[in-house]
Amino acid sequence: MRTVYVNGNYVPEEEATVSVFDRGFLFADAIYEVTSILDGNLIDFDGHMKRLHRSLNELKMPFYMKDADLMAIHRELVSRNAITEGLVYLQISRGAADRDFIFPAASVPPTVVLFTQEKELIDNALAKRGQKVITVDDLRWRRCDIKTVQLLWASIVKNEAKVKGADDAWMVRDGFVTEGSSNNAYIVEGDGTIVTRSFSYDILSGITRTAVLKCAGEIGAKVEERSFTVDEAKVATEAFSTSATGFVNPVVEIDGVKIGTGVPGPVVTRLREIYTETSRAVAV
Amino acid sequence: MRTVYVNGNYVPEEEATVSVFDRGFLFADAIYEVTSILDGNLIDFDGHMKRLHRSLNELKMPFYMKDADLMAIHRELVSRNAITEGLVYLQISRGAADRDFIFPAASVPPTVVLFTQEKELIDNALAKRGQKVITVDDLRWRRCDIKTVQLLWASIVKNEAKVKGADDAWMVRDGFVTEGSSNNAYIVEGDGTIVTRSFSYDILSGITRTAVLKCAGEIGAKVEERSFTVDEAKVATEAFSTSATGFVNPVVEIDGVKIGTGVPGPVVTRLREIYTETSRAVAV
Repeated sequence: MRTVYVNGNYVPEEEATVSVFDRGFLFADAIYEVTSILDGNLIDFDGHMKRLHRSLNELKMPFYMKDADLMAIHRELVSRNAITEGLVYLQISRGAADRDFIFPAASVPPTVVLFTQEKELIDNALAKRGQKVITVDDLRWRRCDIKTVQLLWASIVKNEAKVKGADDAWMVRDGFVTEGSSNNAYIVEGDGTIVTRSFSYDILSGITRTAVLKCAGEIGAKVEERSFTVDEAKVATEAFSTSATGFVNPVVEIDGVKIGTGVPGPVVTRLREIYTETSRAVAV
Repeated sequence: MRTVYVNGNYVPEEEATVSVFDRGFLFADAIYEVTSILDGNLIDFDGHMKRLHRSLNELKMPFYMKDADLMAIHRELVSRNAITEGLVYLQISRGAADRDFIFPAASVPPTVVLFTQEKELIDNALAKRGQKVITVDDLRWRRCDIKTVQLLWASIVKNEAKVKGADDAWMVRDGFVTEGSSNNAYIVEGDGTIVTRSFSYDILSGITRTAVLKCAGEIGAKVEERSFTVDEAKVATEAFSTSATGFVNPVVEIDGVKIGTGVPGPVVTRLREIYTETSRAVAV
C-alpha cells in the first residue's frame, strides 16, 4: 500500500483524504506538478519548482513552503514507496473553506498533497511502437500555461482516443495544433527541422520541452518555434510528443495517416536517447 | 456544526472528506447542482435533476441513484441542518481511482457529496441596492453548458470584481456578453424588451432563467433571446442577472457606467417579485 503525503502527514493511501470543502474539489482551484523518478532520483526538480511558483503567482495563491521542504517530501515518498522508476505527483489547492466563488482569506492554509506512481519510463512500449493520435478541437480554457487541475477536456479527449483505438489526442485551435492531452507536440520536417508551437497562454511550458530543445541544439538540429497545422503534421517526416513521464515519445499516425514510414524515425529516436542519458546524468 | 452527506453517510462537516484520488480533485471531473431552499422547501428540484442528468450524459458519467433518493437526501439535510432559507449543494464526481487521464472502469462508484448553506434569499441586500459589475474576457472552456466544477476562471473574475469594489463580473466573448460568474445575464431595452443570450455551449441553461422567462411572458414582457454587447448593456434601461440563489438580481452599474437611473428599475423589480411568489408557491 502506498504512503501518501497530505498536509504534513504521511498516511496510507486509503486514509489520504481532503475536505469536501477543498477548493480543489469544488472549484478546480488547484495546481500540480509531476516530477519523474529515474534510478530513484528526481528529474529536473528545480524546473518543476520554478513552474510551480509561476502557477502559484498567476493564480495569486498564497503558499509558503520552501522548495527544499517539498524536495524532502518527494524524497521521503520515493523512499517509503521504494520507487525506482515512476513519478511524484504534487498538488496544491487554495485550501478548504465554505463554498464561495470569492477566494478565502489568505490565512486559510493551502492543501498540499503528494503521492507516487510506479511507471516504466525507460522501457516504454509506446515509445518503441510509436503513438497513434487523433486530432480534436481544443476546448480548454485560455490559460493553459498555468498547470491547473482543470483537466476535464484533456481527460475526455484522451479517453476518446482510447475508445477509437488510438493512444492520445492532439488538440487543435484555429487550425493549428496546440498540444497533446498532457504533452507538448512536435513535427520534424523533411530537412530535419524540429517544429513546435512557441510558448503562449495556449500551451504548457513543458519542463521536458525545454530540456529536449536543448538536446536538439546539441545534436545540431534546427528548431523552429512556431505553430503548425494538422495538414503539415500529416506530411511531416516524423512527429513526437514530450512530457515528464513520456520523455520523447514518437507519433507514427495522425488521424489514421501514417507519419513518415509509420515507425519511429531517426530524429525522435536519437532525441529520446540523448534526453534519457542527460536526465539520468543530472537527476538528483 | 453542519451535517454533510458523503457517499451514503451523514457526517459532521469536519469529517466530510473525499479521497485525494477523487477525480473531482485531480481532474475537475465532476458536476454539480445548487437547489435553493425557501420556507424549508426545494425550489424547482425537478429542473435541477433534469439538468444534472444532462450533465452526466454529456460527460458519459455513470450514475445510478434515483432522483427520489437524491431528493430524500436533500430533505434530510435540510431537516438535520434546520435550513429555512438557503441552498443544498450536490456534487457528483467520476469517483476515486489511481491518477490516469483515461476514465476509470464504469464499475468505479461515483462520489456523491451534498451539503447545505444558510443564505438569505428573499431579504437580499444586493437585490435592494443593485449589483455593480465589471466586464472581463470569457476565458472558460467551450462547454459552459455542462455544469462542471471547472470554475477557476469564474472564481478568479468574481474575486477580481470584489477587489475592484464591484459585486460580480460579466464575461465577454467576441464582444458579446456570455453570462455572469455564476448567473445568466440580461438587459432591458427602452421599449421594455428583455434581452438575454440564447442557449448554446457558451452558457449554462439556467433553471432560474427558464422560470424567469416564463414569468416575463406572464407579465406580457417581450423577450428576445439573442447575444448583446457590452455597449448595448451600458445604454440599456435596466440590467439584471438570474441564478438559483440570487433569484432575479438587478445590475445598476457596468464598468462604472450607471444603467438607467442607477437604481433597480420597474421591470427587474416586478420580475423578482413574481419569480419569488411563483417559486414559493411551487417549492416542495
